[in-house]
Amino acid sequence: MIDGKYVIALDAMGGDNAPAAIVAGAVAALANPDVMLLLVGKDDVVSAELAKHSYDKSRIRLISAASVITNDDHPAAAIKGKKDSSMVVGMNLLKAKQAEAFVSAGSTGALLAGATLIVGRIKGIERPAIATVIPSVDRPFLLIDSGANVDCKPSYLYQFAVMGSVYMKSVLGVERPRVALANIGAEEEKGNALAKESYLLLSKSELNFVGNIEGNRIPLGEADVVVCDGFTGNVILKLFEGLSKALFGMVKAALSSSLSAKIGALLSMSALRGLKKKFDYADIGGAPFLGLKSLVVKAHGSSGQREITGAINQCVLFISADIVTRIEQLILASSGTDLGRV
Amino acid sequence: MIDGKYVIALDAMGGDNAPAAIVAGAVAALANPDVMLLLVGKDDVVSAELAKHSYDKSRIRLISAASVITNDDHPAAAIKGKKDSSMVVGMNLLKAKQAEAFVSAGSTGALLAGATLIVGRIKGIERPAIATVIPSVDRPFLLIDSGANVDCKPSYLYQFAVMGSVYMKSVLGVERPRVALANIGAEEEKGNALAKESYLLLSKSELNFVGNIEGNRIPLGEADVVVCDGFTGNVILKLFEGLSKALFGMVKAALSSSLSAKIGALLSMSALRGLKKKFDYADIGGAPFLGLKSLVVKAHGSSGQREITGAINQCVLFISADIVTRIEQLILASSGTDLGRV
Repeated sequence: MIDGKYVIALDAMGGDNAPAAIVAGAVAALANPDVMLLLVGKDDVVSAELAKHSYDKSRIRLISAASVITNDDHPAAAIKGKKDSSMVVGMNLLKAKQAEAFVSAGSTGALLAGATLIVGRIKGIERPAIATVIPSVDRPFLLIDSGANVDCKPSYLYQFAVMGSVYMKSVLGVERPRVALANIGAEEEKGNALAKESYLLLSKSELNFVGNIEGNRIPLGEADVVVCDGFTGNVILKLFEGLSKALFGMVKAALSSSLSAKIGALLSMSALRGLKKKFDYADIGGAPFLGLKSLVVKAHGSSGQREITGAINQCVLFISADIVTRIEQLILASSGTDLGRV
Repeated sequence: MIDGKYVIALDAMGGDNAPAAIVAGAVAALANPDVMLLLVGKDDVVSAELAKHSYDKSRIRLISAASVITNDDHPAAAIKGKKDSSMVVGMNLLKAKQAEAFVSAGSTGALLAGATLIVGRIKGIERPAIATVIPSVDRPFLLIDSGANVDCKPSYLYQFAVMGSVYMKSVLGVERPRVALANIGAEEEKGNALAKESYLLLSKSELNFVGNIEGNRIPLGEADVVVCDGFTGNVILKLFEGLSKALFGMVKAALSSSLSAKIGALLSMSALRGLKKKFDYADIGGAPFLGLKSLVVKAHGSSGQREITGAINQCVLFISADIVTRIEQLILASSGTDLGRV
């Protein structure tokens, strides 16, 4: 920390709307007086963007990075080859403890590769995972792993559950988070080989494990942490996003299909807007990679200003709750038991 | 076939609304003059239910079965132990060629076990799969496997794709069905080990393979056949069902949250009803198990009369298109090649 502030580095070049949305999101995040931001990117481009805003210049620092990793780059090769990219420079700030968190809306694969190669795993953590907060009919839940590890062992899923519980408790204030295993039946013996073994492991853990959760119950908010491998999780995450969008789009189209429907839509608009807002991810902002020595947050590729500000606010909560130390302690505590070794 | 009719057996005892909904669905299905139905179940119960309807008695025959397999029974054990159950008796009618299709809204696990143990696989088919037609923003698509095989090999997925293509072409009239692999990225190298190998297999096949499909694009109807293992498929199927229901429920609640919203809702009701109907599965009725020597159709556990009638109508299309022979020919044709052996 510099001057008692939260120092957060941002990839100014990553994402569909970079650098404009990143810079705007950074400026808006200064509303929190304890935030100090490092904008990593091409000098001229980022300076030009910053010049469009008026802000406290002592609280945003520009860190020069000459190149950019794109979605077309091979993730690991890009991290190893493009040492002067905004992503590599940003993660090196974490490694050097010059920043406590790094937010990027760039390539997920490259960010993951860099997170492992540069930032490094917490001792005892087998695989870092992407944790995404998803809205539900009730309150939001955390989906972990939502895409980092496509082939998993039961012990990974157990660690995902531990990390997800710490996150939900510390960042979202959920007491005794209910952990459920994404599965295809409610009963213990259901599922594929991975699910069956993971069930056993979770049920003998200290976690508040509430059993299996089937796809149709996931949107109801019956669990606070939904655990699965990154293949299943990524399918769930994207189907959630795509189906919500498709259905809201169809409701909108239906409501403009006739004159009476249009008038009806006008009258019911504020109620429908409230609903759409409930299913809006913008304020949540980004998905943290859990299991790393420092915080790396993946913002959606299409992030706008609000998402970036949301991701920065989330970093503050994460750092102030000292999630990394908590995960470290829990993993160390379980590593002497069967749970840590399976 | 008896007297040139389609002979379809029904499990009169399976599902939440049996026997009333099954019997009512059977009677309504007689609207098709070529249908001949065998109702399998407890004599007294089914007779009492039939007595409530007036129908052509020469076209519904009651086949006695003294017991019922429930969701609490262990699937394979129940099939082996309860020889006089409606499910076992019904599938034995298929085996003895006294019926050409069997529809049940009972336990999926037991139906699958019976399908393999009693009805048997088509020669060359490694694993039968559950194929479910799902509505999309555009036209419906087939999800295969939606729950039968939780751990799969690439060669299974290839066969699922072949069977799904035959079904979509023959039953739903889709020329050159577009086959896509459910995956977590658009590029060839994406996914878990199963997805990567299956991609290679599908891309060198004769199928109209259009590549990977991510979760967010599944609801858009960009593929006619979406192929995956039964674990992923079951999560997709149930999440689709649960999220659609949750979102429609929330729209409904929002529309009755204030007086102006209520008036608006009344005015836009017919438009919204049309949309809900588009996402209504009832007329589709059931999910066939593909890869068996005869047709077995799983109707939803909560099936009402419309779903059962829909499932019977689907059987007629299936039998008249001679799907089993078509699948047999295609699998035989590919068994001499790499594709059949992988």
